[in-house]
Amino acid sequence: MEKEKIEFVKSKVRNIPDFPVKGIQFKDLTTAFKDAESLRIMCDAITELYTGKGITKVVGIEARGFIFGAILAERLGAGFVPLRKPGKLPARTIKKTYTKEYGEDTIEIHEDSINENDVVLMHDDLLATGGTMAAALELVKTMNPAKIYVNFICELEDLGGRKLFPQDVEVTSLFAFKGE
Amino acid sequence: MEKEKIEFVKSKVRNIPDFPVKGIQFKDLTTAFKDAESLRIMCDAITELYTGKGITKVVGIEARGFIFGAILAERLGAGFVPLRKPGKLPARTIKKTYTKEYGEDTIEIHEDSINENDVVLMHDDLLATGGTMAAALELVKTMNPAKIYVNFICELEDLGGRKLFPQDVEVTSLFAFKGE
Repeated sequence: MEKEKIEFVKSKVRNIPDFPVKGIQFKDLTTAFKDAESLRIMCDAITELYTGKGITKVVGIEARGFIFGAILAERLGAGFVPLRKPGKLPARTIKKTYTKEYGEDTIEIHEDSINENDVVLMHDDLLATGGTMAAALELVKTMNPAKIYVNFICELEDLGGRKLFPQDVEVTSLFAFKGE
Repeated sequence: MEKEKIEFVKSKVRNIPDFPVKGIQFKDLTTAFKDAESLRIMCDAITELYTGKGITKVVGIEARGFIFGAILAERLGAGFVPLRKPGKLPARTIKKTYTKEYGEDTIEIHEDSINENDVVLMHDDLLATGGTMAAALELVKTMNPAKIYVNFICELEDLGGRKLFPQDVEVTSLFAFKGE
């Protein structure tokens, strides 16, 4: 994927000062999603990264991870699996509670959604501190899929979220923000 | 789209008795999403319905409406716009509060996400009582797009949600459940 296309997508990301709390420069991807050209470039670029890897399931992290998680599943010919906040999934689930900056959170996935033959691509839109994806990865690992990949659209490098993931897991992001 | 393909997708939908409350037969679409063939059939069928209509934006209703909302945006060459629960969207929004069976709820959309030239496809996975989509439709109408279409994957006909929508809005669903 050519660098200028990715720069075009980055230029569509809106910076929101002091959201959700003072001092945070929030990267709003909705402005990149609403632009059809930018949406198409992101789709093509992430699909290219995972074509030929035999992905059978894409796990999207609620809620913004559903957006590209679903698109990638369809593009890669895989199934889509939502990983959700507690109480949202109607059938039997497995759960994991993890510590966040302020308090705890729990995530859930249907217990029959992934099996040992699956090659899983886990997706969320933004890699910030990485806590939710790291917990999601541990949860999906307990289902013993053949292989797990992790992808984000955008990575905030200053927050160092990548260091939460084990060395043997391939983590990609389409572009990063650093010092901004 | 051939009837047997749609029947195949319907056969993938899981029935959950007494969810979220006793007496409700919940239709769980996650089992149709996780099956790659079923996901592909639904994509093709809904895309076929809206090809050639000049759709420029697809609005997905949080959270399950993000799944196919995003896929349809990508397939139709449109942008994707999330319509969310309060406090989730970081930039300036417009909101609408509406009455549900038990209490009130509020929905929000970024005020700059849709303009007067847009042809909008609004999507959610399931048409039950229709309250959320009817409120979402009224909210999007205040942004004066050129045209609005409404789509669901699945419709629960016994609940009669369709009657909430004005006659001049074309509402489609891929398949329905009735008396089951």
